[in-house]
Amino acid sequence: MAARPCSIANALDVIGERWSLLALREVLLGQRRFAQIAANTGASRDILATRLRKLVDRGVLAKEQYEEHPPRYEYVLTEAGRALAPILHELMQWGDTYVTEGPAPTAWEHSCGAELHTVNVCVHCGEPANPGESKLVRLGGVPQAPR
Amino acid sequence: MAARPCSIANALDVIGERWSLLALREVLLGQRRFAQIAANTGASRDILATRLRKLVDRGVLAKEQYEEHPPRYEYVLTEAGRALAPILHELMQWGDTYVTEGPAPTAWEHSCGAELHTVNVCVHCGEPANPGESKLVRLGGVPQAPR
Repeated sequence: MAARPCSIANALDVIGERWSLLALREVLLGQRRFAQIAANTGASRDILATRLRKLVDRGVLAKEQYEEHPPRYEYVLTEAGRALAPILHELMQWGDTYVTEGPAPTAWEHSCGAELHTVNVCVHCGEPANPGESKLVRLGGVPQAPR
Repeated sequence: MAARPCSIANALDVIGERWSLLALREVLLGQRRFAQIAANTGASRDILATRLRKLVDRGVLAKEQYEEHPPRYEYVLTEAGRALAPILHELMQWGDTYVTEGPAPTAWEHSCGAELHTVNVCVHCGEPANPGESKLVRLGGVPQAPR
């Protein structure tokens, strides 16, 4: 039986590796250079180079030259890369709640002045999108019968 | 230099493997049995068994016996597992937008009647939490100077 056609699986093909997401975390934090990303993630240089190359190939990061002699590059986020910021924030919140022991290592303050905690809401009605409150209308390309 | 203490990294230690997240997708879709999860994800049985064991050990899934002779089990979500639903939905949306070619394979209808598209908002003010609108107050356990 073939796996379901699925955009979660497709997304994980691009960003589903641990060091890819941690490298993206660093670029989102403003660390654009290879050595900084390696130091702050703890990734081995070989693996990190492979992951960064893939993120560039798949359009999540772009390389910008910042020095000509010798040629040196830094990594910047594309639109697709910036769109991962909320997902990383949610992963952080989940880790704070269910994995990390002790206080949250990292905290953000929202522009409203409160410490940033986020919730996923429906764009249309603004209400939280809790599991069980939505019904499947199509799954893996197959329309679903109303329940 | 040590990697940053980070709840994203901690979260990825638990759920950062491709087949773990795809297995969780299946359980969220109501597929609780090993053979169904294997078929719908395309995971090899060995890898899937390892991933499921880890998810149970780390408290994201629980095993429930549904047959005594022979003993058979199915997988159910814990609170920590249910809390991953919004993250998987956001990964799906990101894949729909930036990776999948053609129409979105899977669609949900929210309880309000609209097709479910979600956005991350600040719990306090209800406004979207866009990158660049929040400032770091603590990073990897280290307080950050106001910018």
